[in-house]
Amino acid sequence: MAELSRRSGLSVPTIKYYLREGLLEPGHRTGINQAAYDDSHLDRLRLIRALSKVAGLPLAKIHEIIDVLDSDSSIEEALALTQDALVQKAGPVPEGSADEVSADPESQALLEKLIEARGWPHDPSSPAHQAAAQALSELRAEGLDSVLDRVDEYSALADEIARLDLDAIARADDPEDTVRLVVLGSTLRRPLLDALILIAQQKASIRTFGGGPGN
Amino acid sequence: MAELSRRSGLSVPTIKYYLREGLLEPGHRTGINQAAYDDSHLDRLRLIRALSKVAGLPLAKIHEIIDVLDSDSSIEEALALTQDALVQKAGPVPEGSADEVSADPESQALLEKLIEARGWPHDPSSPAHQAAAQALSELRAEGLDSVLDRVDEYSALADEIARLDLDAIARADDPEDTVRLVVLGSTLRRPLLDALILIAQQKASIRTFGGGPGN
Repeated sequence: MAELSRRSGLSVPTIKYYLREGLLEPGHRTGINQAAYDDSHLDRLRLIRALSKVAGLPLAKIHEIIDVLDSDSSIEEALALTQDALVQKAGPVPEGSADEVSADPESQALLEKLIEARGWPHDPSSPAHQAAAQALSELRAEGLDSVLDRVDEYSALADEIARLDLDAIARADDPEDTVRLVVLGSTLRRPLLDALILIAQQKASIRTFGGGPGN
Repeated sequence: MAELSRRSGLSVPTIKYYLREGLLEPGHRTGINQAAYDDSHLDRLRLIRALSKVAGLPLAKIHEIIDVLDSDSSIEEALALTQDALVQKAGPVPEGSADEVSADPESQALLEKLIEARGWPHDPSSPAHQAAAQALSELRAEGLDSVLDRVDEYSALADEIARLDLDAIARADDPEDTVRLVVLGSTLRRPLLDALILIAQQKASIRTFGGGPGN
């Protein structure tokens, strides 16, 4: 247990909590107060840690994802569930509101067109679809036509980023590790890209508006 | 006042609050309980609304931005202040921690190299710089080398997105409107791009891992 804690970076009470919650299989009992844990325990703990500590998903959702991984389902099913959980956590769409459509019809239509043009999967009930429709609606409500006019270009860039994201995690050799890398990648890559865009904007801003520091 | 409320989309109590806080200049008095407001009041209210209701910036920060706009400072100064406020709000870097460097030296060095390669402005004290260094550090701490290996490609895409963002707002004809569009654009474009990336990932994921729904 002490070694498991050291190698996973999680405290003993946290590991015991995951055991009680049934997220982690008990170790093989080797004595009255002793149990042996193997690499499968460590892998599972690393996954739980990513889902819980890094991505901040609720325990019920972590249970769901792990159940799918432990079943005969495909890796895509586990990935889809994970991505939906991540967007529901980050996005403006509250969980369980799948039927409520708050985006305006024009934004819905714009999104449908985009998805068709790019050959993306069409799934209006997915949290990602709803978050996109919502974002387009808000841009429209604020009169940001100049952003909406460029939505094809943003979509093309979104495609490239998605491809890069998937390339970065495609090397994992088992489903559990793949899910872990998807969670860490999308949770930690997002603030990186946001920050890089801001740095780049400072340059673009100097170019667009002239001047710069000291001018 | 009633018309100002209707046209700005803000309630009368909210407008009165901004007047009391000194964010909005008083109207021209035309009678005991009457004041006239002109387009400059409406423009200012629209800006305050974007900074406050959409971006969620604290009142003190809004005061700062407006003071810079009302002074003889350049538009870049107002934009830099606004962007710093936005990244401080969104990012992991707590305000006032400019001197504390929590990113590891390797990540700092990697970021310096990136910035030089792309010709971005080098300003290690800016919140965007610190947020980027922090994000690189976290990726490294989690062992996500496969993401770090692609950081040049992410930077190139960040450049393109920044250019697109700036193109979208470069049409504004006065500093006040420019700041408003930057705030709305970066606050509302971010969830749009995130959602589009997620939709695109579903496609990329089907391609990378084979199968798809029903397989």
